[in-house]
Amino acid sequence: MKRTSLLFYLFLIFTQAVSAQQRPKYIFFMIGDGMGLNQINLTEVFLAAQEDRNTVFPLVFSTFPHATFATSYSLSHGVTDSAAGGTALAVGKKTKNGVLGMDSAGTVSYKSIAFAAKEAGLKVGITTSVSIDHATPASFYAHQPSRNMYYEIGLDLLKSNFDFFGGAGFLRPDQTYKKESAPSLYPQFEQAGYTLAYGQDGYQAVKNKANKTILMNVKGSDSESLKYAIDQQAGDLNLAQITDAAIESLTRNNEKGFFLMVEGGKIDWSSHANDATTTIREVLDFNEAVKRAYDFYQKHPQETLIIVTADHETGGIAIGNGSSRLNTKILANQKVSQTALSKLLNELRTAQSEVQWEQVKTLLSNHLGLFSAVPITMKDEDMLKGIFQKSFVNHEEETAKSLYANDDKLASEAVKILNKAGSISWASGNHSAAYIPVFSIGVGSELFAHKMENTDIPKKLADLQGWKIGE
Amino acid sequence: MKRTSLLFYLFLIFTQAVSAQQRPKYIFFMIGDGMGLNQINLTEVFLAAQEDRNTVFPLVFSTFPHATFATSYSLSHGVTDSAAGGTALAVGKKTKNGVLGMDSAGTVSYKSIAFAAKEAGLKVGITTSVSIDHATPASFYAHQPSRNMYYEIGLDLLKSNFDFFGGAGFLRPDQTYKKESAPSLYPQFEQAGYTLAYGQDGYQAVKNKANKTILMNVKGSDSESLKYAIDQQAGDLNLAQITDAAIESLTRNNEKGFFLMVEGGKIDWSSHANDATTTIREVLDFNEAVKRAYDFYQKHPQETLIIVTADHETGGIAIGNGSSRLNTKILANQKVSQTALSKLLNELRTAQSEVQWEQVKTLLSNHLGLFSAVPITMKDEDMLKGIFQKSFVNHEEETAKSLYANDDKLASEAVKILNKAGSISWASGNHSAAYIPVFSIGVGSELFAHKMENTDIPKKLADLQGWKIGE
Repeated sequence: MKRTSLLFYLFLIFTQAVSAQQRPKYIFFMIGDGMGLNQINLTEVFLAAQEDRNTVFPLVFSTFPHATFATSYSLSHGVTDSAAGGTALAVGKKTKNGVLGMDSAGTVSYKSIAFAAKEAGLKVGITTSVSIDHATPASFYAHQPSRNMYYEIGLDLLKSNFDFFGGAGFLRPDQTYKKESAPSLYPQFEQAGYTLAYGQDGYQAVKNKANKTILMNVKGSDSESLKYAIDQQAGDLNLAQITDAAIESLTRNNEKGFFLMVEGGKIDWSSHANDATTTIREVLDFNEAVKRAYDFYQKHPQETLIIVTADHETGGIAIGNGSSRLNTKILANQKVSQTALSKLLNELRTAQSEVQWEQVKTLLSNHLGLFSAVPITMKDEDMLKGIFQKSFVNHEEETAKSLYANDDKLASEAVKILNKAGSISWASGNHSAAYIPVFSIGVGSELFAHKMENTDIPKKLADLQGWKIGE
Repeated sequence: MKRTSLLFYLFLIFTQAVSAQQRPKYIFFMIGDGMGLNQINLTEVFLAAQEDRNTVFPLVFSTFPHATFATSYSLSHGVTDSAAGGTALAVGKKTKNGVLGMDSAGTVSYKSIAFAAKEAGLKVGITTSVSIDHATPASFYAHQPSRNMYYEIGLDLLKSNFDFFGGAGFLRPDQTYKKESAPSLYPQFEQAGYTLAYGQDGYQAVKNKANKTILMNVKGSDSESLKYAIDQQAGDLNLAQITDAAIESLTRNNEKGFFLMVEGGKIDWSSHANDATTTIREVLDFNEAVKRAYDFYQKHPQETLIIVTADHETGGIAIGNGSSRLNTKILANQKVSQTALSKLLNELRTAQSEVQWEQVKTLLSNHLGLFSAVPITMKDEDMLKGIFQKSFVNHEEETAKSLYANDDKLASEAVKILNKAGSISWASGNHSAAYIPVFSIGVGSELFAHKMENTDIPKKLADLQGWKIGE
């Protein structure tokens, strides 16, 4: 072969290699709700601290070959909510806080990347660790002027005809936004061809017969959300299982690829409660779901794109609150979420007519490490004891309300003490305007290498695929 | 021309285009000391808010085609200081907080990227808005077990033989670390061939005769740092001017390219003081210096690389402290730094034997907007009045000590009120462990597209150039 010809063939191979990688067939769009850069960083620092290492142990997605960040403000507010944030990620347009997949006035519906994928013949899955009708997942399939129109969102699910839904359940399956009773969503789902599966065992039992699937938590469990990872026990449905089920379901008898959205929904909830350890466990739980996507990527590296991002940061968390020595290791003394701790305190209060302060101390020691592994100041003990006095002795109940929990004040103040000792600071119980992370790997991931708007994420993906969104 | 030949020529052009872009001749390494992602984001949000726009107005560097982030922890601490942080960026090795360009024990010296550039025949410039012997700039040319060994750092400057130094001045030019008097550094600099230039006019007067230059602030001004941008007046030396002078000096009669480090050193100082408006103005001042580098890049796009990063975040700042509506616009009511405000309060206190509360209110209104554009609560006014009573009436002086300032407590509490009203929260007066930003443009910038260690930044640059560092 002549030298010229050889070089020409090399050139052909080169151009083919470039063009063959242009469009992913399998797309994972993974959203850590409320997962700012500091939530990720804290998790990495915490993992290393457990082995007394002053370094970071990376997560699956933090080693991806592309990592950047994006703005998260909405059309109406400097600090977005999950509806406008989810809509930005789903349809590529900013809208008003509270609105799902529509313009600010709630009159024009926008097409999401999920609908575009469906139109292109891909199978589509929408999954979450909270309810399936919650703002982030709903942004991908619903068009409603309010995120609180849960029943109407359920009807939009029917219209979407997407192939797989997974999450805790539905918040209002038989009552409209106007509080009028309405035909239950569940039989309507079945009539539309969806197989309803409840829990991991339920899914295993029906998966081979199912065409389109809605996977929910076992009947009788909380339809609002899966349990916090820190509170889960063997047998509880988790996000990684839902992700596995979605991948299995979307790849069965399907040659045309898929678009799968996976939301780690409770990073946001624990951050609203300013509960650092529970937040870390939620990030790790989300990371397990990403690991499932990454395993799939490793089998199909030339055809897969994984994007890991967030809708906003929650809590304005900072790592380091004065000292240059971090003490995040001690956060591991917390064994239950603040919400579960509140329940334990409530159980103690209601089980006995007269509770002693020492009993509360033992409970806080067992579940947070306070008074034992984590010594506390006299001033802090007096403060906790004052709350105990009001709540357990004088029976004046006090709660610390965050967006998703009415936690016992004793629990929230005790967690606050642990967080402070563990080098953590929070700015508020609301979202912040911090940049959101954007990690990516696979076909097209090089597009996500510079700072962008949150709306650019689905727009770049749509451009890559030749799809139209936001119309 | 045959089709095969045409494609072959296209192939040749392609391969040449790839190889021609491999190594930058002109390298800008720009460091915002203490400039975390939130400091940048806040500045962008603030700029838009001044025009009542709920969006971000990007900075020069935030539009760069590559943007990612890096860890900042040191070898000894979860939260780095500027010495270990600067050393990581300069030599590609983590070390103990406080150490400059050496291992933790202070026994082995590491070669920095600046020395590698010098060895490769490039001219080298080291510039800052603080003193030239401060931790960040010193990391690039000094090897000392303590960042406080200012005289010894000055002697290292001599040994470096680098071509351009710029900054406020030198902190201890004639006294060793052991507090022994020593021969002044200045004549030694001159004997080694450096032309000493003082201020912008001084530089203009000597620049054509100078071979190697040390540009400092005008004699008699503060050798610790340039004035805060918010306090500067016409004629004051600023970082953009130093950058211009460095570029001019390093390109004169030089065909071999340059390595120029530029530090915006006081973003850190104002963040230590939890002074948001002054921090924003410092980020904008640093951005002006980046603009000078970017102008140069635009003239030499095929030969230039600009990296903009930070050594650490300072203060754990968050944007958004409860409400989803941001109120950063009002931060513009602050017209002087907290430090300058302290001086104004001190002047008022010493100028008059009996100061009235109304006079203090007028001062705080004029310089922070409090009581006028920014209404404050009765509780906050009572708090400020209490401090006034102690300080102005009872003459018990109170200061709020941060790392670089002993600010009047009345000033710091007043700034705190403005910050809170302006949607800002701070975690502490120390650094945090937050990721540092890495923005880049130009030849080789595609290397900076994934999350990395701070030490990877100079290592990637050295690899790109075929240089050895950290030895």
